[in-house]
Amino acid sequence: MAETMGTWRRSHYCGEVTAAEIGKEVVVCGFVHKRRDLGNLIFLDLRDRTGLVQLAFDSSVSPAECMEKAAHCRAEFVLMAKGTVRERQAKNEAMKNGDVEVFVSGLKILAEAEVPPFEITDKTAVKDELRLKYRYLDLRRREMQDAIILRHKIVKAARDYFDENGFLEIETPILMKSTPEGARDYLVPSRVHPGSFYALPQSPQQYKQLLMLAGFDRYMQVARCFRDEDLRADRQPEFTQIDLEMSFADVDDVIAVNEGFMKTLFQRIMGMELTVPFRRIPYEEAMRRFGSDKPDTRFGLELTDLTDLVKDCGFAVFSGAAATGSVRAINVKGAAKELTRKEIDKLTEFVKTYGAKGLAFSRWTAEAQSSSFEKFLTPEEKQAIHTRMGYEQGDVLLVVADAKTGVVFTALGALRVELANRLHLIPENSFDLLWVTDFPQFEYSEEEGRYVAMHHPFTAPREEDIPLLKTDKAAVHAKAYDLVINGCEAGGGSVRINDPALQTAMFEALGFTKEQAVAQFGYLIEAFTYGAPPHAGMAYGLDRLVMLLTGKDSIRDVIAFPKVQNASELMTACPSPVSKKQLDELGIALKQ
Amino acid sequence: MAETMGTWRRSHYCGEVTAAEIGKEVVVCGFVHKRRDLGNLIFLDLRDRTGLVQLAFDSSVSPAECMEKAAHCRAEFVLMAKGTVRERQAKNEAMKNGDVEVFVSGLKILAEAEVPPFEITDKTAVKDELRLKYRYLDLRRREMQDAIILRHKIVKAARDYFDENGFLEIETPILMKSTPEGARDYLVPSRVHPGSFYALPQSPQQYKQLLMLAGFDRYMQVARCFRDEDLRADRQPEFTQIDLEMSFADVDDVIAVNEGFMKTLFQRIMGMELTVPFRRIPYEEAMRRFGSDKPDTRFGLELTDLTDLVKDCGFAVFSGAAATGSVRAINVKGAAKELTRKEIDKLTEFVKTYGAKGLAFSRWTAEAQSSSFEKFLTPEEKQAIHTRMGYEQGDVLLVVADAKTGVVFTALGALRVELANRLHLIPENSFDLLWVTDFPQFEYSEEEGRYVAMHHPFTAPREEDIPLLKTDKAAVHAKAYDLVINGCEAGGGSVRINDPALQTAMFEALGFTKEQAVAQFGYLIEAFTYGAPPHAGMAYGLDRLVMLLTGKDSIRDVIAFPKVQNASELMTACPSPVSKKQLDELGIALKQ
Repeated sequence: MAETMGTWRRSHYCGEVTAAEIGKEVVVCGFVHKRRDLGNLIFLDLRDRTGLVQLAFDSSVSPAECMEKAAHCRAEFVLMAKGTVRERQAKNEAMKNGDVEVFVSGLKILAEAEVPPFEITDKTAVKDELRLKYRYLDLRRREMQDAIILRHKIVKAARDYFDENGFLEIETPILMKSTPEGARDYLVPSRVHPGSFYALPQSPQQYKQLLMLAGFDRYMQVARCFRDEDLRADRQPEFTQIDLEMSFADVDDVIAVNEGFMKTLFQRIMGMELTVPFRRIPYEEAMRRFGSDKPDTRFGLELTDLTDLVKDCGFAVFSGAAATGSVRAINVKGAAKELTRKEIDKLTEFVKTYGAKGLAFSRWTAEAQSSSFEKFLTPEEKQAIHTRMGYEQGDVLLVVADAKTGVVFTALGALRVELANRLHLIPENSFDLLWVTDFPQFEYSEEEGRYVAMHHPFTAPREEDIPLLKTDKAAVHAKAYDLVINGCEAGGGSVRINDPALQTAMFEALGFTKEQAVAQFGYLIEAFTYGAPPHAGMAYGLDRLVMLLTGKDSIRDVIAFPKVQNASELMTACPSPVSKKQLDELGIALKQ
Repeated sequence: MAETMGTWRRSHYCGEVTAAEIGKEVVVCGFVHKRRDLGNLIFLDLRDRTGLVQLAFDSSVSPAECMEKAAHCRAEFVLMAKGTVRERQAKNEAMKNGDVEVFVSGLKILAEAEVPPFEITDKTAVKDELRLKYRYLDLRRREMQDAIILRHKIVKAARDYFDENGFLEIETPILMKSTPEGARDYLVPSRVHPGSFYALPQSPQQYKQLLMLAGFDRYMQVARCFRDEDLRADRQPEFTQIDLEMSFADVDDVIAVNEGFMKTLFQRIMGMELTVPFRRIPYEEAMRRFGSDKPDTRFGLELTDLTDLVKDCGFAVFSGAAATGSVRAINVKGAAKELTRKEIDKLTEFVKTYGAKGLAFSRWTAEAQSSSFEKFLTPEEKQAIHTRMGYEQGDVLLVVADAKTGVVFTALGALRVELANRLHLIPENSFDLLWVTDFPQFEYSEEEGRYVAMHHPFTAPREEDIPLLKTDKAAVHAKAYDLVINGCEAGGGSVRINDPALQTAMFEALGFTKEQAVAQFGYLIEAFTYGAPPHAGMAYGLDRLVMLLTGKDSIRDVIAFPKVQNASELMTACPSPVSKKQLDELGIALKQ
């Protein structure tokens, strides 16, 4: 069996053993990171969450027992070492404290280790599947340690900030009521009430509004949420929100509190000073200029509307699209060299994945002008387009035309970001924070053949738009806002309806009968009749926020035990079948 | 429709309007708590989470519109009021700021309110069912607001303390693997993997141990946990733990960190200075003296063993019990007057609910001695008992005899607390913190016919007891400890096994075959082969801890949205049936 610590205790973390400690006796502990065995000299790099320190053994001086144990050590053995800090003969410049070492006088092997399935290195090229199966080993790697430690700091800073600003963290239930509309709810069968189910929350939305009705005034919660759906690349079946709600607050109040939050977070975590207030871009402007409600404005490549210029042209692709949709373009300035015909073909495939039927182009190199569409236009039409686009030699025009403007925006919005990445137009380590505001209240659902709420049915419309609820739904704007960081939606929220009469009008506008509204939101509708303060709130996707601040590419790299795309966890192999006895107790059976 | 805030914003919370603000213009907002309408004078008490403030209206001075609105207000209307702080004519001594009022110059009714189903008062006699159905109204009451606010402060202080001490808060999954032994796991069917299920965690035990294996060194989490069982009075199907784990730590290290935590918590939250270290009472001593592994030592009434004195006596109830179990007694000093025969009969019924067959007594009033058992004893036996018990005039002896000592402890342990409550022996607002240590490693399960782990199979035995694993399981003590506050288990934990060989020996001692161990804990057993630091941890029941610190009687009073005893939530009426469509999508069906 392995040794025990006995009375020894750590005096320093590995990373704390620096030149300031030279001459002192220390006790360090951790994992063996690397071993160099020169026979009479043995060096072990010991690793803990703060870093590394070199342990040195010398057969001419060290106790024989120590030398023997040191020689026995392999990677990932767990040690506790006592010794004296001294200057190192050969400095290791790559190591923060590579100028010192612990000359070991006593060593305990607290645990031996099998050879791990992959080496514990700072960066790794090991396959994700293997990393996730042995997550506890993957998490030993420096970059994973750093990400999880930074996540802790971010969440701590968030809680501190909101506490300093009078927000109470209040826990809301995880076992809650399922609703017929909750098509993506995880359900939990009840043993005590066979045939009945709880649902896991997609967000604490209803509970946090009830907390405002209960007079708590300012609420926040770092809340676990759940969504049972086919997973996109950076979604998890369970995810964490920084969730907040304020009473007696309107759009500007929520924005001010959250700009303060971001400013504090960037100060405390990144050591960066953000300028507040952030820019606010109305939804329609964001779509028009960037083709996206989460625009990355760290680079140009803005969209230009050409619809009016081509609506009567002889090119049916353009004029046809212009009739009901639009024709829009990006001028990729000075990119004619990089964007070869072959590259443009690739971009065409790219926009097709976003629903576009194709990508028209015009390319002006030193040698020639070539275009997929200009031959169909009159010289005047061509000139008008060139003028509006500021088209010059060296430029490439990329045009999407579609009978649905939504498709044009989606395709060009994605193309813009793709181009910026390919052409390296995005400054590194830069942060671009802005608000998108004035979202439409409704969006038309082709599937349901009616207008549905773009956010949710409790979102308040702008006061001046209330009369339009009955007459012109498409023109109603919501008091909703998203915080966008580097082209990602970091968070979003809205002012809520606090007036039962307006809520009724909203349900009507959404096509709910009174009975349907009561069936789905009964207790909530009743709650609002007992005096509801005006309130507004916001929620951040914490995993995404941490990813943005740590510069990681995958959300899995900022979650200790993530699930993979098919919602399973590779380490424990869950979900998994359960016994018939367990199902019987729950009063359920599997369908064949 | 109701009015909107427009450009008005709160300048002060109600409780902040004090004499220091006299002469200032303020804007306050909140709920109407009470209205007094004297015709030309109207007074409204406005309530927010900080307290109350009186709004004053005077028809001879106030704008007519203000008077009209004020006259229209009823309880729970939501208002925003602008006005000047002035001294109050008739002071209200019962109100913290009862010496001032806001003389209102402008008033907005932000929401009207139906007459609530019960009055929003500081204390309430309203039935729990009604309170819970309208939880958002119940939470408006002062004592509920205070409890939830204090809960926030306790959790914040906990996070601050552990952060200051190098603990990282790391989130562990809520959708995790179900195990065949998890008879009380909530299961969650997977839509993506029909026929497979997740389980909700009963605790993050396995994940936090993996975090130690991953080298995070110190972990904490305020973690939601779940247990699907018939609910006892103060259990909830979902509950919150303050969960922590430390590497390179043994019993004393965990205890020291947690004594620091308690000291800090009591300082910051209660303004009280605790003396550390707390007493440590070994499990066996706790049982022997107090009949409980969570003794309340704020009063006496300790147990005395009489087994040796009565083992050969002529009273078969005693001698029979003594043969395999024991006979133990409490001397209730000076209680002969209060503990009438009738009272003793009640206590007899009380101990029967804890499994005792009866309660023998001896009662010595000024008038007479009476006893249910002494007539069966010899004078010498009687005298020996009296001497050992220190029995004097005015005392009552209460004796429990049972063939199982466990029953004797349980019954007398509960009786002791019951007596202390009835006789008011517990000093008010006193806090008694102590550790119970050296728990048995195993307890014999009659049901399973074998020894099972008293804590869990990963708990480390004391080093000196390891050889006993094969020879004398009953004598093996665990490195486990509970923190007991006022006779309640506030938290508990243990040192864990970090040596795969010892873990194997432990599984053997528990009667697991190798295959069973692997089937149940496979990935965990493998994880321990890659180098596991020694580690130890602890978990607090947060709900219980808050209850202890707030002095509440029910755990429901410290949870914003609790469930009742049958695991349902009365406000939303969950759990509830779901549609066949939803079940179909999950690949499950209800059993008839």
